[in-house]
Order: sequence, then C-alpha cells, then structure tokens
Amino acid sequence: MTILAIDPGTLRMGYGVVVSHPVMEAVDYGVIALPSSMSIESRLYQMYTHVHNLIAIFRPEAVAIEDPFVGRGEHSFPRSSLAIGQAQAVVFVGAASQGIEICRYKPAEVKMGVADYGRATKEQIRNIVTSTFNLPATLEEDAADALAVGLCHLSHRHATGALLNEIPPGQER
Amino acid sequence: MTILAIDPGTLRMGYGVVVSHPVMEAVDYGVIALPSSMSIESRLYQMYTHVHNLIAIFRPEAVAIEDPFVGRGEHSFPRSSLAIGQAQAVVFVGAASQGIEICRYKPAEVKMGVADYGRATKEQIRNIVTSTFNLPATLEEDAADALAVGLCHLSHRHATGALLNEIPPGQER
Repeated sequence: MTILAIDPGTLRMGYGVVVSHPVMEAVDYGVIALPSSMSIESRLYQMYTHVHNLIAIFRPEAVAIEDPFVGRGEHSFPRSSLAIGQAQAVVFVGAASQGIEICRYKPAEVKMGVADYGRATKEQIRNIVTSTFNLPATLEEDAADALAVGLCHLSHRHATGALLNEIPPGQER
Repeated sequence: MTILAIDPGTLRMGYGVVVSHPVMEAVDYGVIALPSSMSIESRLYQMYTHVHNLIAIFRPEAVAIEDPFVGRGEHSFPRSSLAIGQAQAVVFVGAASQGIEICRYKPAEVKMGVADYGRATKEQIRNIVTSTFNLPATLEEDAADALAVGLCHLSHRHATGALLNEIPPGQER
C-alpha cells in the first residue's frame, strides 16, 4: 500500500510518501515552502501542482491529510480556519481530480495512531517517525508531521484489516 | 473587458460572466449547486472544473470574487471560515492555472461599487443588478450576488481608469 500523507499549510506544506510493503518505508518526503510575498493564489496553485505531481508519480491508494482542530467561541481562529480551508482544498482537488480517496485525521487521532497516546508530545511523535522510517534527526518538522499522518493511516488500516480478518465465532479450526 | 465574477460557496457557487463593451451585458450567469450528501472533495473538484471551464470558454481578463467578512472574537465563525477558504481556493487555483488575475472585494465594497452606499440592502443590490443587465426578477440569489461583484469590479476599474486619464493640472488645453 502506498500513501501520500500531507500536513496542510498555505506557506509550508509537509508531505510524505509512505509504502507499507515489503517494509514500511518513506520513499519521498519534504516540505513545499513558499514565501509570504507570493500572492495566495500563486501559492495555492504551486501547492496544487506539487500535490498533483506527487499523485501522478507515486499513484497512492489514498491521500491521508491532517484535519486540524477548528476552535469554537473564544478559542476560535477564523483567520487560520480560512488558511486551513484553502490549504485543504488544493489537496482535495488534487486527489479528487485523479480519483484518489481522501482520509482525514484529527491531531489527536494522529497521536493515538502513532504513539498509542492522544496527548503525546510533538517530540515523542517525531522520535517515533524518525526511528520507524530510519530518518535523520534533522528531518524538517512539517515533513515529520506529514509522515506521522501517513503512519497513523497505516496503523488505522492495519487495525481495520485485522478486525475484518478476524475469524467469526464458531468458525475456528 | 470580460470579467468572471464569483460568489464563493461549497454547496452553492454563484457565477456571472460580464462584458463591458459594446454594452454592459451578462453573457452567462448561474449557480453551481451541489448536494451536501456529496463529499467535500468531490464538491470542490466539481466547482474547480466549472470555474476552469468558464475561464477556458470566456477568457476573462480577470476573476472578481467576493471576499467575505471573517469575524473576530465572539463574532467569529471558524467553521464557515473553513468553508470560505475551501471555496476561495478552488477559484484561486482555477484562475492561477490559466494566468488570470484575481480581484477580491469585501461585501461593503461590492455594495459601494454597485449602489454607492456601503449599507445597501440585498434587495436594493439585486434590483440594480437585474435592471442593469436587463434580467428577470426570478434571477437566482447567488447568481445575482456574483453579478453584483462583477458590476463592482467594472465600476472600480472605470473609476481607476478615469483617474489615470485625468488631465494633470497645468496641462489643460
């Protein structure tokens, strides 16, 4: 299984291409970083082009994307919500244009999927990512965040697969 | 001058293609309406395809889009901000992919541009739009909103043009 994992942003977008077979491996990863002096439409178009190309090259079965927390009331951030919506949309359009399934994970789900603990620190998540994929400690933060989403997706699918493969009661041999 | 004007939304997106010459005319207008049962990625991709096709067919000089108010503090709406960001992004990417300039107008700017009054009612704006473009009173609301953005853009450009063409002091003949 090949997954394109994305940590969305309108200035920096982390990405990781993760394969689960024959061994779990990050075959490509990095950060698409664009200057804030560039217009938002040019940045979004650049992001879209990158996502489109990554899908065309690696033909992932799914795109896994972090679905950030959008607050409510006094804890809400409408301006960042707008940016999150913009960044998500280019990934959605890039995937949908090539018929690729989108899977969204909340930050706490990513932590649970990677570290088995919803309140794991960024540092703990990062350590698991670098050791799982055998990557250097200098790995960029947004790339590590994307790879964590990919790892979460694989562990989620693995768990779902295990449940589906469970032998129904009475059919044990 | 040909303008594609957009009132963005993730369920309903109003659009209008407005030409200023030889007479001001709405050569195409309507609403792209999609069911909420459709996934957000499919809806955004549909919206993107429509915008992309409208640009390819009419080759507008610019895309004019309403840039809705994103509140702050207790008046903020993070969930709708997310949707606005998503809807804007597909228009931005559709325009940027074909090298078309994007012009954004705040709701009050649209009202000023159309009715010369920043607090004009929706009904007043609608009446100006239908009478300017000689359209039936049954015009759909989101299409009327998009055409108002187009009208605002033309009046804005006309004002800018008039200023640029102003005869500098001392050069009057």
